[in-house]
Amino acid sequence: MLAAKINGTEQAMTPVIDPEACKPRAPRKLHAREQHPEDTVVRVGDVAIGGGAFVVIAGPCSVESEEQMVETAQAVRQGGGAILRGGAYKPRTSPYSFQGLGPNGLTLLGLAGKATGLPYVTELMDAEDLPLLEEQADMIQIGARNIQNFSLLKKVGRSSKPVLLKRGLMTTVDELLMSAEYILDGGNQSVVLCERGIRTFETATRNTLDLSVVPVLKERTHLPVIVDPSHAVGKRRYVAPMAKAALAVGADGIMVEVHCRPEAALCDGEQSLHPSEFAELMAQLRGMAAMCGRTI
Amino acid sequence: MLAAKINGTEQAMTPVIDPEACKPRAPRKLHAREQHPEDTVVRVGDVAIGGGAFVVIAGPCSVESEEQMVETAQAVRQGGGAILRGGAYKPRTSPYSFQGLGPNGLTLLGLAGKATGLPYVTELMDAEDLPLLEEQADMIQIGARNIQNFSLLKKVGRSSKPVLLKRGLMTTVDELLMSAEYILDGGNQSVVLCERGIRTFETATRNTLDLSVVPVLKERTHLPVIVDPSHAVGKRRYVAPMAKAALAVGADGIMVEVHCRPEAALCDGEQSLHPSEFAELMAQLRGMAAMCGRTI
Amino acid sequence: MLAAKINGTEQAMTPVIDPEACKPRAPRKLHAREQHPEDTVVRVGDVAIGGGAFVVIAGPCSVESEEQMVETAQAVRQGGGAILRGGAYKPRTSPYSFQGLGPNGLTLLGLAGKATGLPYVTELMDAEDLPLLEEQADMIQIGARNIQNFSLLKKVGRSSKPVLLKRGLMTTVDELLMSAEYILDGGNQSVVLCERGIRTFETATRNTLDLSVVPVLKERTHLPVIVDPSHAVGKRRYVAPMAKAALAVGADGIMVEVHCRPEAALCDGEQSLHPSEFAELMAQLRGMAAMCGRTI
Amino acid sequence: MLAAKINGTEQAMTPVIDPEACKPRAPRKLHAREQHPEDTVVRVGDVAIGGGAFVVIAGPCSVESEEQMVETAQAVRQGGGAILRGGAYKPRTSPYSFQGLGPNGLTLLGLAGKATGLPYVTELMDAEDLPLLEEQADMIQIGARNIQNFSLLKKVGRSSKPVLLKRGLMTTVDELLMSAEYILDGGNQSVVLCERGIRTFETATRNTLDLSVVPVLKERTHLPVIVDPSHAVGKRRYVAPMAKAALAVGADGIMVEVHCRPEAALCDGEQSLHPSEFAELMAQLRGMAAMCGRTI
Repeated sequence: MLAAKINGTEQAMTPVIDPEACKPRAPRKLHAREQHPEDTVVRVGDVAIGGGAFVVIAGPCSVESEEQMVETAQAVRQGGGAILRGGAYKPRTSPYSFQGLGPNGLTLLGLAGKATGLPYVTELMDAEDLPLLEEQADMIQIGARNIQNFSLLKKVGRSSKPVLLKRGLMTTVDELLMSAEYILDGGNQSVVLCERGIRTFETATRNTLDLSVVPVLKERTHLPVIVDPSHAVGKRRYVAPMAKAALAVGADGIMVEVHCRPEAALCDGEQSLHPSEFAELMAQLRGMAAMCGRTI
Repeated sequence: MLAAKINGTEQAMTPVIDPEACKPRAPRKLHAREQHPEDTVVRVGDVAIGGGAFVVIAGPCSVESEEQMVETAQAVRQGGGAILRGGAYKPRTSPYSFQGLGPNGLTLLGLAGKATGLPYVTELMDAEDLPLLEEQADMIQIGARNIQNFSLLKKVGRSSKPVLLKRGLMTTVDELLMSAEYILDGGNQSVVLCERGIRTFETATRNTLDLSVVPVLKERTHLPVIVDPSHAVGKRRYVAPMAKAALAVGADGIMVEVHCRPEAALCDGEQSLHPSEFAELMAQLRGMAAMCGRTI
Repeated sequence: MLAAKINGTEQAMTPVIDPEACKPRAPRKLHAREQHPEDTVVRVGDVAIGGGAFVVIAGPCSVESEEQMVETAQAVRQGGGAILRGGAYKPRTSPYSFQGLGPNGLTLLGLAGKATGLPYVTELMDAEDLPLLEEQADMIQIGARNIQNFSLLKKVGRSSKPVLLKRGLMTTVDELLMSAEYILDGGNQSVVLCERGIRTFETATRNTLDLSVVPVLKERTHLPVIVDPSHAVGKRRYVAPMAKAALAVGADGIMVEVHCRPEAALCDGEQSLHPSEFAELMAQLRGMAAMCGRTI
Repeated sequence: MLAAKINGTEQAMTPVIDPEACKPRAPRKLHAREQHPEDTVVRVGDVAIGGGAFVVIAGPCSVESEEQMVETAQAVRQGGGAILRGGAYKPRTSPYSFQGLGPNGLTLLGLAGKATGLPYVTELMDAEDLPLLEEQADMIQIGARNIQNFSLLKKVGRSSKPVLLKRGLMTTVDELLMSAEYILDGGNQSVVLCERGIRTFETATRNTLDLSVVPVLKERTHLPVIVDPSHAVGKRRYVAPMAKAALAVGADGIMVEVHCRPEAALCDGEQSLHPSEFAELMAQLRGMAAMCGRTI
């Protein structure tokens, strides 16, 4: 099929590269506030992220069973959470760890969503699963490890589902905005950015939550910005202070891990809040939000 | 075979090392909450740090003139700041940058303090200046660059002045607590810890403010913990959100840079608040503090 | 479609989750030297990586034209390079940058390979392109940004092509080995690890080449380890010293960027060696290798 | 004593600040190669650092006893080391760890130096000890933790002893050169820079040895640059590969920890070479150096 280096007829098979194909495109800055001064509001079911309310996304790290999912969703609903989270496809460092329930996990998320009236967000790891998520999920999460998986970004950019884009452990602000740009450039304008901790030398917490990225992002982009304190701190008892700090710093919401029985969780139980802890945190957040003229 | 530098009997001059001299001492954990469950309250003049109030330390990066110092101190006072800050000895990366006014700077701090009734904190860089600071200053700051200058830590450990110990750019929680331990071990129990940003890969902010260190430190130590958002973010417009986050996360106070004319500041003007910005921030902090049952 | 939480007929639609599906698998350690003491040798065409020789992979960052590819390949061949590199699919931070020639790039790589007799390695970004790369390429590169794109790792794990796995900017040794494990676990035993610089606070170089990872990896795994100095330093004049250090530290080879006209390169020209610089470096490496009883 | 803000006689006591005192000095760039193209050669006793030879500084982390010091010095001498190292004043994270033998340690270093004919370098932590070190030591080390202890830098800048300046864990190239500038600006032109590992996220090694800083520094400054692999890697078995890489990358020498009985060392025994390991490393380095036309 390829041209050989010897004779002429074969060389005719060499592709003729259009010089235009090698040129960069004229850069757009679809993410930039300078080109779009008003805040973007992203709708997930009936929930608006970025419109002034403080939106709480909560749920278990991974979907494990119907009982776990429905019970936890009810705790999220009762506490005042607006969106449910849960992983059906799990990015795990080791191939031998629990990898998620896959399509069955999506079914259970749907059940829990119906049981509580909450829309749900779940992570997409493989473009092959995008049609299924588009059909079933309310919001698609691109996880920290795929923040520069540009093939995947392009594909969700062609989707009509809202996207929750998590900053990677090593992602600069410029890179995060450029990864968002991949999605916007594809036509999907419903992108929510999420700070979830960066990797530093400090090991007292799992990662280092970079809350200063919130005012930086709010200045540079019109996209909503939320904070995931759970993955950043890695320990349940540090989640509530960081969640309150996220509200104070001006984030549009948080994503926290809640599990009906954290001690039995298959993944990240150490950082998941008990339902009662979640309810207590929500009460505190509501008080703080009211003082700032915001609702939860 | 061996010899000292003068004469033949010389071998008698070889020191006889007491094996005890080589042994580590039994470790104490004077900083640890497990050994001292109640919060330590550090008194600076009439101000109590660590007793539940949210203490605001404010002032210019460096002392420049009587007019600058007194005007700024009045703005701090009017805004509701409790302690004045200002550098008379300045640690500058380049030897050719302004190095501070030295003793004259202390005199001006004293004047500004008297004019406003505010106690002041100022940085000690050289142990030679300790007697002067002990005589004149209300609180001695050990800056981030000297966080593991153990000779200096030992010396302020023998002082009776309260010490503000700033975490270095690459200091782990364990190291910070051990540096505090050097001071406590010397007999000085009045130590306040200060998070001021760590060095990471991110350059959108000057450093990365690690607010999660506040709940971590509150758990491990009884010492008060404050936050310096100004040096961490490096830009005026990001200071207020981080200051509010510091209150929300549970810090005992903040240290912020305020300058009567930031655009003319000799050092760090870009991150210094205007008096009006400071007043506005303080109003917001008072509202938040009241909601949490705290005073400023 | 989904089951409701109330009545029985619908509950029948709830998936019955086999409790086994939630269990982690028994961990294997296919990468570990303790289970496989002898060095693995990975064959790419006629070239053996890991068998004691010092293998040099060289070529342009991206494939741009037939002329560029063939000329550069000839320079690589003349200098003594063993494997050709070139990107047909380019992971670019911005969606507006040149994204690579895609299948046409592979055709040109094939032409250049035939013209010189060199096998070639090229990056896979999207699993959709795997069949094409399996058909055409001699070795498949997984780039730093996809180091934890576990879906992609699983898919190349089921391929029979050798894989060059580049450490990410924030990948720990443990994580790198676990990413390799994903590939090994799939049945593909031909994995070469590549250090290419990690992200630190230092900006004098593009990234920080972590050469100490070479002895660490050689101790922990039987897989070959090579070093990419070009991406790590980001500047042409620092490439040769780091390449020599890579040989001295015990790496199994290097991957360096060479371009027939670096000043006209569409990507990473600043870090690409001129053919004459490459030839000079190769001469120095051959001298050093000979002294260590190794061949290039 | 201080002036009050109200009445005139007291205001007379306010210092009159000369506006010149607030101005930065005209920056010099004494460290810069552009102003001093030829390499600086620093002499330590009879040893020249920076003149083309590869200088090996070796010895224990801390001075412990006459026997330990003399035995280790003899091993250093026999292996071919040019300068002895050993700490009499030890910067330890914990105040309860062994802090060094102080002046007795200097005496033992002097004994070991006389016994072997080797000059020695030892760390200065406290300016109070400078006169003693100036009298006794051949070279003064400023440790990583004091890299921005500007008071100390100014004081060794006024000394006539050569200075070994170690890069801190968080020191950028620019900062390192500015810290050297403090010493040069004081009049002391005998400064040797030392890379000893920076702090990153990776924990497989104690720190991350940044060998790329060697060509970067060689380009920017005329000062000699050496490498300390021992503190960077933290484990004995990784020291030799990194030492060889330091030679290959173009450093002017290395500083390695050697102890006659590492398993009994009071400090850093895990990273200290046995005398036989040191001898073996030296033989390898001599072979490599000869090939590059350098001597050890």
